[in-house]
Amino acid sequence: MPARNALFIPGPTNIPEAIRRAMDVPQEDQRAPDFPKFTLGLFRDLKKVFKTTEGQVFLFPGSGTGGWEAALTNTLSPGDRVLAASFGQFSHLWIEMCRRLGLEVEAIEGEWGEGAPIESYAERLADDKDHRIKAVLVCHNETATGVTSDVAALRRALDAAGHPAMLYVDGVSSIASIDFRMDEWGVDLAVAGSQKGFMLPTGLAIVAVSRKALAAAAGAKSYRCYFDFADMARANKDGFFPYTPATTLLRGLRASLDMLQGEGLEQVFQRHHHLAEGVRRAVAAWGLKLCARHPRWHSDTVSAIVLPPGFDSNLLVRHAYERYNLSLGVGLAKVAGRVFRIGHLGMLDEIMLLGAIAGAEMALSDIGVPIELGSGVAAAQAHYALARPEARRAAAG
Amino acid sequence: MPARNALFIPGPTNIPEAIRRAMDVPQEDQRAPDFPKFTLGLFRDLKKVFKTTEGQVFLFPGSGTGGWEAALTNTLSPGDRVLAASFGQFSHLWIEMCRRLGLEVEAIEGEWGEGAPIESYAERLADDKDHRIKAVLVCHNETATGVTSDVAALRRALDAAGHPAMLYVDGVSSIASIDFRMDEWGVDLAVAGSQKGFMLPTGLAIVAVSRKALAAAAGAKSYRCYFDFADMARANKDGFFPYTPATTLLRGLRASLDMLQGEGLEQVFQRHHHLAEGVRRAVAAWGLKLCARHPRWHSDTVSAIVLPPGFDSNLLVRHAYERYNLSLGVGLAKVAGRVFRIGHLGMLDEIMLLGAIAGAEMALSDIGVPIELGSGVAAAQAHYALARPEARRAAAG
Amino acid sequence: MPARNALFIPGPTNIPEAIRRAMDVPQEDQRAPDFPKFTLGLFRDLKKVFKTTEGQVFLFPGSGTGGWEAALTNTLSPGDRVLAASFGQFSHLWIEMCRRLGLEVEAIEGEWGEGAPIESYAERLADDKDHRIKAVLVCHNETATGVTSDVAALRRALDAAGHPAMLYVDGVSSIASIDFRMDEWGVDLAVAGSQKGFMLPTGLAIVAVSRKALAAAAGAKSYRCYFDFADMARANKDGFFPYTPATTLLRGLRASLDMLQGEGLEQVFQRHHHLAEGVRRAVAAWGLKLCARHPRWHSDTVSAIVLPPGFDSNLLVRHAYERYNLSLGVGLAKVAGRVFRIGHLGMLDEIMLLGAIAGAEMALSDIGVPIELGSGVAAAQAHYALARPEARRAAAG
Amino acid sequence: MPARNALFIPGPTNIPEAIRRAMDVPQEDQRAPDFPKFTLGLFRDLKKVFKTTEGQVFLFPGSGTGGWEAALTNTLSPGDRVLAASFGQFSHLWIEMCRRLGLEVEAIEGEWGEGAPIESYAERLADDKDHRIKAVLVCHNETATGVTSDVAALRRALDAAGHPAMLYVDGVSSIASIDFRMDEWGVDLAVAGSQKGFMLPTGLAIVAVSRKALAAAAGAKSYRCYFDFADMARANKDGFFPYTPATTLLRGLRASLDMLQGEGLEQVFQRHHHLAEGVRRAVAAWGLKLCARHPRWHSDTVSAIVLPPGFDSNLLVRHAYERYNLSLGVGLAKVAGRVFRIGHLGMLDEIMLLGAIAGAEMALSDIGVPIELGSGVAAAQAHYALARPEARRAAAG
Repeated sequence: MPARNALFIPGPTNIPEAIRRAMDVPQEDQRAPDFPKFTLGLFRDLKKVFKTTEGQVFLFPGSGTGGWEAALTNTLSPGDRVLAASFGQFSHLWIEMCRRLGLEVEAIEGEWGEGAPIESYAERLADDKDHRIKAVLVCHNETATGVTSDVAALRRALDAAGHPAMLYVDGVSSIASIDFRMDEWGVDLAVAGSQKGFMLPTGLAIVAVSRKALAAAAGAKSYRCYFDFADMARANKDGFFPYTPATTLLRGLRASLDMLQGEGLEQVFQRHHHLAEGVRRAVAAWGLKLCARHPRWHSDTVSAIVLPPGFDSNLLVRHAYERYNLSLGVGLAKVAGRVFRIGHLGMLDEIMLLGAIAGAEMALSDIGVPIELGSGVAAAQAHYALARPEARRAAAG
Repeated sequence: MPARNALFIPGPTNIPEAIRRAMDVPQEDQRAPDFPKFTLGLFRDLKKVFKTTEGQVFLFPGSGTGGWEAALTNTLSPGDRVLAASFGQFSHLWIEMCRRLGLEVEAIEGEWGEGAPIESYAERLADDKDHRIKAVLVCHNETATGVTSDVAALRRALDAAGHPAMLYVDGVSSIASIDFRMDEWGVDLAVAGSQKGFMLPTGLAIVAVSRKALAAAAGAKSYRCYFDFADMARANKDGFFPYTPATTLLRGLRASLDMLQGEGLEQVFQRHHHLAEGVRRAVAAWGLKLCARHPRWHSDTVSAIVLPPGFDSNLLVRHAYERYNLSLGVGLAKVAGRVFRIGHLGMLDEIMLLGAIAGAEMALSDIGVPIELGSGVAAAQAHYALARPEARRAAAG
Repeated sequence: MPARNALFIPGPTNIPEAIRRAMDVPQEDQRAPDFPKFTLGLFRDLKKVFKTTEGQVFLFPGSGTGGWEAALTNTLSPGDRVLAASFGQFSHLWIEMCRRLGLEVEAIEGEWGEGAPIESYAERLADDKDHRIKAVLVCHNETATGVTSDVAALRRALDAAGHPAMLYVDGVSSIASIDFRMDEWGVDLAVAGSQKGFMLPTGLAIVAVSRKALAAAAGAKSYRCYFDFADMARANKDGFFPYTPATTLLRGLRASLDMLQGEGLEQVFQRHHHLAEGVRRAVAAWGLKLCARHPRWHSDTVSAIVLPPGFDSNLLVRHAYERYNLSLGVGLAKVAGRVFRIGHLGMLDEIMLLGAIAGAEMALSDIGVPIELGSGVAAAQAHYALARPEARRAAAG
Repeated sequence: MPARNALFIPGPTNIPEAIRRAMDVPQEDQRAPDFPKFTLGLFRDLKKVFKTTEGQVFLFPGSGTGGWEAALTNTLSPGDRVLAASFGQFSHLWIEMCRRLGLEVEAIEGEWGEGAPIESYAERLADDKDHRIKAVLVCHNETATGVTSDVAALRRALDAAGHPAMLYVDGVSSIASIDFRMDEWGVDLAVAGSQKGFMLPTGLAIVAVSRKALAAAAGAKSYRCYFDFADMARANKDGFFPYTPATTLLRGLRASLDMLQGEGLEQVFQRHHHLAEGVRRAVAAWGLKLCARHPRWHSDTVSAIVLPPGFDSNLLVRHAYERYNLSLGVGLAKVAGRVFRIGHLGMLDEIMLLGAIAGAEMALSDIGVPIELGSGVAAAQAHYALARPEARRAAAG
């Protein structure tokens, strides 16, 4: 009996029924006279999710990785210098991409488990008197380690240094789930993907671009065509696209934006925090440690959990999948075999997450990790249940 | 954010993805030349689920209640005497229906929480020397109290009394989930519905009829037309129906039968037992009691749980729904307000059920029932997790 | 390549995307606190479709045939006399049902191809001085012959005779497609099904009941339970049902009502008339005759077309299905082999219908019926295309 | 009443039900242990569609335009010379992309309405004694003009010239619909998209690469990362992907391949030819001309039709959409306003296409183009219907 897989990887995330239905549509004519009315509404509402009024949002058929590439090739020229910190697999990969695309990277080696090293950024920026650094890259939420960084602090560092470099943010696993403020934080390029907080299948690279970045695009000499902002901007202006758009996903995006707005962005963030906190209490009850070394970096979308020495997290994840039909995230690269991850973003509530915690407990116990069955669940429940007497009294009618 | 409702009522049950997809089809021509090939396969495979080779299965657009009516009106005449026991809301309602359809009911008043009183049946049958009783009715699985009865024992009682009455079984919440053996147990009429073990939406009354019952139908004088066996049999012979069938559900039924056969019926029963046992251990860990008074009556499809005095199960169920988006079953009729029910049938696995148990715990705690959060989950996990050291060693690679 | 079947039988009809999506939902808790809000809206809006403010609408899991039975068993007693005319297979079958349910039928034998013989009804009513006739039955739209009858005239006949009998209307293939006015025409019981004008799958019997009929139900002695109005009325009052409802179809019904109201009922009727008229012009261009003998009986939901002598309509329908994947309706009973039918109701537009007409032409030509390819299409197009010069001028910008 | 849009643009094409259902799935874990078994089957079967045993197929989240870019950036270095002909909007755009990606293009200006000018290619290749041309690009099926070119002849030209340049083919609107033979024609890079012959939504760039091209990739110096073949090859080897794949589309692709294989590729091509021929006969009957100037270039996937002087094809297309809910293709670039297009590829049969032809006739007539209603339909029907007396005799039973 293949019951439904319990999907708790940090993306792709579970698709809400309303979004599945919205995507289960016949193909449509992307040049129809009434198509622009539909698409222009998407662009308008996406800006609210990025919290930008000045910026412009582009939608490419592609994945978040394509969004990274779009950000770099549209605004930089080969040989341009970028400043970036590596403190997890995804921040590492973006740096790798920079190099492969011909950019010169000033890389800060951060610690896996810590947030972006703002002070190191600040030092490098201060040192860069002649402003050779064109762009500062940061990963808002490092999915590999479950660490959220302080983008606002990085903006303050740039300002403190009086440095004109643009600020590029990988928000793939944060935007639409964790508070992100493009305009307030002075972000020039923000990259998101459809398959995380937007609760859609993979297939849309979503890139928000500031006016400054758009202006920079005019002079950038990196070759690009598929991901070209200018082509998009020209066609998008009238609600069309320079080549065939992924209309099915656009229809799903409409439903996604309606759901996000219906719940309210701040409420979405609060819900993620509330749910994540339950997971963290479970981890503590198990006597295990998060990869994230300090609460200020705790990610509300993914928790990376360190196994005790001698246990293999790949085995754990495989066993959870095969025995309990529960998908957890493996540890990646530096933390492979040592860390497993619980994704807790997108469409999610307490009951779903408690099932996953219970399943993780059984899998941990099965492979011999000395935890007490039910302990994590109880700790999470204590956080989720109505704690205050007056609330309980109300529930009691 | 309306995440998905956690549906743990004792039917309708959760629909597997494969069945949902199978039903998401355009309407079709129920007189098409290739339609019979499809429908004849359904009848063939349904017989396997009822474990009958001699009987015939009919599919009416309707609910299980319609199946009850079909069984009665096709085979009995007004004034005919039937013997039936009432020991829960559904066994009670079937008796009520008998009376409303003009039958004379010899009703045995059983205890809610106990199984069908086989000895009382035996006595009445023994007393009925001139065989005025035409039919003996029994509810295999009483959904209101979570009690499964011993149909084979009832057959033995009939045989012991040398009584020729036909045996009618309400198998709505057992068939396809709990072992049911039409031919072996000498059942003449068995009623199932689409929305329980078949994992479909409500809308099909599924009635299996023995040769003896079909023969009886010829002489039965109750008026019927919509639910007439003879009309069905005549059209079904060639794979058609006397009036427009619910083809969408028939397509789903094909997927359902494929799933049941793919897993294997015995494995399906075993899985239900395995999952149900976890729920029962949770209830014990909470210090609560099942409505079912003895383990031999424990239902593997639904557990009815008694709240301590002073607590209102309607409030509990409402709170679970409103606060945790968890649907539990209320107590019905005699046990309204005192009992709540967890349905554990159909598409289900450990993770899903642990989420429901965890949710029930929070709701119980919230309304003040003195249970320990996590205690039920831990007890169920202890049953579900790999207990034996050698199994754990295998999991550990 | 199984492309989509072109479904042009007179029901089930093509399901609009919006309705398919609305039904592609998880199962739900039919006792949830917010369920009544949903269902009460359905009852409210259904009354608008039946054009009744006084009547009450019931929804049974079942087919239209079940609706017929509900109407009869709730309001009549065995031995009661009903007056009904047979002028096609469906009017015939309802009469048959009356007899099987123990009613005494005064049957008027009408002509297949003519509407309900209002004058004969009038005569019988006038003759029935002591008002032994309790109910007058009529089929509003006879699906077998493509004939729509004048229900208002039948009401006038009743009134002229000063006859107190109740008026029962089979509106299965008319309601929601052809104008029907329950209150204005003094209809006491109107039966519809989900799979015609409501554009849903088969599975809901929809019965509208006048206050007078509800009052009659109190005294009616026919046995009934599944289809009992009183049980329904009691539970429906609070938005619930006496047994598990077919919630999937109810969700679809919501979408159906939204579509009907969105387009506007009068506009729906007008569209059906407009489309049907194109079919009729095609038939004339082919040199064939409709089964309906006079334009005043032309049905806007189905056209029954008579083949020239020597041709077999079963062969035609089978060939169209196998060669062109086009489903047409066969001739039934008296007109089997001589008539084929094109259903043109529900979700439909000119392009879809022209495809069907073109397909019917090829199939007719293939089996040797001497028609000119394209002739019917051209005639329908001439009706559908913008005929007036000023309209064409507007289209020409 | 929004009935279903009749979609007859040359892509995206209508999605078969089986594919829609296959894509209506929950998100899945792209690192699950059983994921590779699924994906490796896709790669294996895709090779059959491209008719290659030596080549390798890559699947990028993106559109066909992304496939073009992948082909160029993986195998060429800035400044490399390519030879390409422009004879329609899509062949033109690929040349434009080459230039924007830093390649030096030797462009042949072909005629819109003619196929790829093989002789001109041959001359240029003969002239290129020192083999500066690294790659020869050709558009197999020019979607803007409805012209199919002779790729085999281009291969012969390369061979005749003894020229080592690689052969790149844009097969976006031909592959899986029109015969394409990668190995036999010595094609090094073939680009397809999901939304044409594969009958999927937009979102997959499908690129087949010969061994020679893969070897060339090792030395190519164009910057690329998202579309990098080597990253893909490394991960694909084990059935995984270098970044999150669009699993929903992959599930749909499985169904698409099953359908293509079930019908048989040659049968798919034959069906497209059969259907297209009907459209061409309709155009002739209207007295209009195809954009394609000679039958040897007739495209079996799209017909571009030239309006008589004085008529505006944009108006026609808009009117067809707004009045008849029929989506036709507009004329692009050089032929904007003068040409409209009927896409006839993917899931399609005679009835669907006759509906579109009938709709196009009405729209043409409405805007004043002097055509006879029904004439095109009749011509197409004459091609589709059973012409031969013996076939008709068989149909007649």
